[in-house]
Amino acid sequence: MSESAAHPDTAVTDYLAERQCARQWRGFLRALAAEFAEALPAADLRALLRRVGARFAVEAPLPALQTLDELQDAFSRVWLAQDWGWVALAQQADHVAIRHEATPLVAAFGPGSEAWAGGFLEGAYQHWFDRQGAPGLQVRQAGAPDRWGGFAFRLGR
Amino acid sequence: MSESAAHPDTAVTDYLAERQCARQWRGFLRALAAEFAEALPAADLRALLRRVGARFAVEAPLPALQTLDELQDAFSRVWLAQDWGWVALAQQADHVAIRHEATPLVAAFGPGSEAWAGGFLEGAYQHWFDRQGAPGLQVRQAGAPDRWGGFAFRLGR
Amino acid sequence: MSESAAHPDTAVTDYLAERQCARQWRGFLRALAAEFAEALPAADLRALLRRVGARFAVEAPLPALQTLDELQDAFSRVWLAQDWGWVALAQQADHVAIRHEATPLVAAFGPGSEAWAGGFLEGAYQHWFDRQGAPGLQVRQAGAPDRWGGFAFRLGR
Amino acid sequence: MSESAAHPDTAVTDYLAERQCARQWRGFLRALAAEFAEALPAADLRALLRRVGARFAVEAPLPALQTLDELQDAFSRVWLAQDWGWVALAQQADHVAIRHEATPLVAAFGPGSEAWAGGFLEGAYQHWFDRQGAPGLQVRQAGAPDRWGGFAFRLGR
Repeated sequence: MSESAAHPDTAVTDYLAERQCARQWRGFLRALAAEFAEALPAADLRALLRRVGARFAVEAPLPALQTLDELQDAFSRVWLAQDWGWVALAQQADHVAIRHEATPLVAAFGPGSEAWAGGFLEGAYQHWFDRQGAPGLQVRQAGAPDRWGGFAFRLGR
Repeated sequence: MSESAAHPDTAVTDYLAERQCARQWRGFLRALAAEFAEALPAADLRALLRRVGARFAVEAPLPALQTLDELQDAFSRVWLAQDWGWVALAQQADHVAIRHEATPLVAAFGPGSEAWAGGFLEGAYQHWFDRQGAPGLQVRQAGAPDRWGGFAFRLGR
Repeated sequence: MSESAAHPDTAVTDYLAERQCARQWRGFLRALAAEFAEALPAADLRALLRRVGARFAVEAPLPALQTLDELQDAFSRVWLAQDWGWVALAQQADHVAIRHEATPLVAAFGPGSEAWAGGFLEGAYQHWFDRQGAPGLQVRQAGAPDRWGGFAFRLGR
Repeated sequence: MSESAAHPDTAVTDYLAERQCARQWRGFLRALAAEFAEALPAADLRALLRRVGARFAVEAPLPALQTLDELQDAFSRVWLAQDWGWVALAQQADHVAIRHEATPLVAAFGPGSEAWAGGFLEGAYQHWFDRQGAPGLQVRQAGAPDRWGGFAFRLGR
């Protein structure tokens, strides 16, 4: 394998990014996102996606876990098994940083969805952390996703 | 290959039916369907899915075609390319019968979605037939889908 | 969902059977099978596939397990995670019956591969049973696969 | 979407590269490659893969085309439809440069396969060019593939 290139060139990166969303649902989800964006404000869409994410997490229950590392592994197993990337958790002074790489959300919902697509992950993490017994802690998105569906969240007050 | 069995047994059929929806979106779409079903009446969901289907068809434009056979082939090429089955068109006395087999809609949205999931296909076919110049003709679903995502529609007055 | 049909009709069954093999490798694997079949006798191909299966199992090691049920679940987790169906084990008087349903092998390698494709599974099961401490027991295919990639094996002397 | 990063970071790039090969066949193809590499010298493997590639192209016949652009588009349609990337052709002084980006071959066959995996593409292009009527011209790989399955070939004397 050539060691000359550390990164694929732009066309390859764009191709790999587009392929992050399974071919079967690309057209459907793009059309759904366009319809959503016309019908509802971003805040309502984010709230809708949060509810969908919570329902997703209900169907993917986790056992009670003792450490952030165990939790990170349990989350990542769920995501990796369905080609939704993986997550890293890091304890900070006043919050837990949640970094989820390589979701298919940006590929699926396209440009314009940055303001609301992350609601799905927010809702899922909120439900899972609530069930682990973290009452009063909120999951909130921290900044815009990157082009490869990477999202940052914070769990805190 | 064994010639003893004309059909797979029930467990295999159920497995193949579930796999009709790509793994990556199964959990998301099930959760979305559950949220939709709680938030909106079936008629509103069907209307929403019709609009989504129309948007899908806008993004998959077809050339002007002369015969039902050509149209059937053009439709099927779109669907087969994304693992959404295929369609057969048949001229009847007062309508065109549209039979679309093996969509992933039933696998994706699950039991309870029969009343509205077909709206997506209705909206797509309506848009495509309108663009072929069939003014005043309506696409309407004819009966419930089967377990493998097969849907019947009629194009007529 | 319509309850009228217990089985999909033949065209749908054929479509679902073909889709058992991921689109990305269908053409490659068909061409590989044709080349194999021309170059080597079936017995040599089966032996080759057994070695490939053993290598596969080496890369998917299982913990030591106490019961056939645990083993069946561990096997099935490996297979289901990659859309290779699932397996059932049953203790018989003088052997363990291994029934593996819905592999993509028949869809991938096509007609003509029945005599050798199952070697892959034979090799994988042989390695896994050996590692569980079943010295001297052989995994042997019992009969031809069905059209949906279902294979039967026996573990015995 | 964040505009801060032109490239995904290394872990994301590695993840996307691994996902270039469909999950269903990753384990099988890795094991096959390991068995191949132990049983045969690289030159024999390349020759085997060339024959497989030729068979693949026989099953994906192209019409007679007039220009390199038409040929490039016809090739790319075949590859894109099965998530094998795309190809660019460029007329040079004494050869046609063939640049095929983003195949799943490197992800599938892994490190060590660089010396032979490209034989598949060589065999396919050779067959297609022969059928277009380019007698006496040979397709030969030009250099090692990159990490994302990008290969270069030359068609010439």
